[in-house]
Amino acid sequence: MPLPFHTSRFVEFSDTDMAGIMHFSAFFRYMEAAEHELLRSLGFSVYSEIDGDVVSFPRVAASCEFHSPARCEDVLDIDVTVRRVGTKSVTYGFEFSQHGRDVATGQMTSVCCRVPHGEPPVSIPILNAVADKLREMAGD
Amino acid sequence: MPLPFHTSRFVEFSDTDMAGIMHFSAFFRYMEAAEHELLRSLGFSVYSEIDGDVVSFPRVAASCEFHSPARCEDVLDIDVTVRRVGTKSVTYGFEFSQHGRDVATGQMTSVCCRVPHGEPPVSIPILNAVADKLREMAGD
Amino acid sequence: MPLPFHTSRFVEFSDTDMAGIMHFSAFFRYMEAAEHELLRSLGFSVYSEIDGDVVSFPRVAASCEFHSPARCEDVLDIDVTVRRVGTKSVTYGFEFSQHGRDVATGQMTSVCCRVPHGEPPVSIPILNAVADKLREMAGD
Amino acid sequence: MPLPFHTSRFVEFSDTDMAGIMHFSAFFRYMEAAEHELLRSLGFSVYSEIDGDVVSFPRVAASCEFHSPARCEDVLDIDVTVRRVGTKSVTYGFEFSQHGRDVATGQMTSVCCRVPHGEPPVSIPILNAVADKLREMAGD
Repeated sequence: MPLPFHTSRFVEFSDTDMAGIMHFSAFFRYMEAAEHELLRSLGFSVYSEIDGDVVSFPRVAASCEFHSPARCEDVLDIDVTVRRVGTKSVTYGFEFSQHGRDVATGQMTSVCCRVPHGEPPVSIPILNAVADKLREMAGD
Repeated sequence: MPLPFHTSRFVEFSDTDMAGIMHFSAFFRYMEAAEHELLRSLGFSVYSEIDGDVVSFPRVAASCEFHSPARCEDVLDIDVTVRRVGTKSVTYGFEFSQHGRDVATGQMTSVCCRVPHGEPPVSIPILNAVADKLREMAGD
Repeated sequence: MPLPFHTSRFVEFSDTDMAGIMHFSAFFRYMEAAEHELLRSLGFSVYSEIDGDVVSFPRVAASCEFHSPARCEDVLDIDVTVRRVGTKSVTYGFEFSQHGRDVATGQMTSVCCRVPHGEPPVSIPILNAVADKLREMAGD
Repeated sequence: MPLPFHTSRFVEFSDTDMAGIMHFSAFFRYMEAAEHELLRSLGFSVYSEIDGDVVSFPRVAASCEFHSPARCEDVLDIDVTVRRVGTKSVTYGFEFSQHGRDVATGQMTSVCCRVPHGEPPVSIPILNAVADKLREMAGD
């Protein structure tokens, strides 16, 4: 059974736009922050190094559907689900709500990569310890 | 036959992240800016008013697939296609490339809305003059 | 005697740049968020309305000196001091540090304004209840 | 006699906030972009490498005074002046205006630094070729 990860986020003034609501691009930053928080909850940093190369999780895909506006000073509940764990990639689902009101639904796929300085990222297998915990969250 | 709209964008230092590449959330801001530029090219402002209410195009969906990194000082070519024009909504496709290298592919659906001050947006039909031009671009 | 207000902030991946450190513009967003948190701690929202007009605190000046880098996943301590309370404006000082290491020092002056829809902001006196509490924090 | 550098900037929807005006933090990103454009106009990239270490110009100080609001779709004129060129640092002044209306005045001091991977930046002398051109612009 999948184990969702829960976090929340306060909508700041600087995340709003002149339509008076939170700008849609901010949802993607919030998703990334929630993903990183989930990884830290498993004892894994967003950003580590192997032999001097950075190991990170760049995204290969991100999407979001916006159902109702988020506003300044709203506290958004964010439920993160691990949807799929591959050898090198993870897919997460995100549910944003406020006091039970559905706000947005998103998805992101991140690929474990070694990022040699100034060169293109190279995908690598996710560390076993991390993959195991993510699979546990996915209910696999 | 669809008429694509072309624009370009210079990747700024402030759009990069510590992995040394353009942050993925910036693609969504670039898509919105390209959409607005397309609308202006048709003589339509992003943001107008009817009877004191703002008329705008909030997004209901946005997605992007990231194929290769964009870096600081890259000039990204952005081809925008009008994919579908409904009564109240428009779907755009975006192709990001640099010197012919495929960088990312995105899609966004925006809904024409009246945004009464401090209240939820209310979808309204796209003005005929605008819808006609968008349909022409879509090749309908 | 001045009563400082304390808050903290987690540095997110999306606030870093390709130099591997937090982008300097993020300090200004963090200062604004801390200012708003201070106002909320006094029972005052960032953003209220009088007769349908928005009342807000746009900035007239902001400055920051950067002493040492902030990095992804750092937790920054932020001490906010109310430096001066005028009839219509407030000046705040900000000290950023991490585990006692001095990171940055900032200052911002905000002016209480009525913002009529689509027109320039008009400065107005700060509500007495708010001004009194701010003066108390300033040690006046 | 100082030689000012001129550029301009289109204010995008995503740079506005719920007060209906450009968010103050965006001025700092615009200043940085203008600084980088000035450096490129002298044939110098924002971001180079010496022996595998990044050479960049982190800021030690930034300030801005906001005189009147900038709005979505405004084209801001930006005049950049080189105010002072030291051995390791440069101070720039920025004047933002729109159709002759004074919008904001800023200043930034950047220090030439070698940024060893994951370590604090180390200030180094500005390359002679660059310093000479900057001094010419400063009217020294």
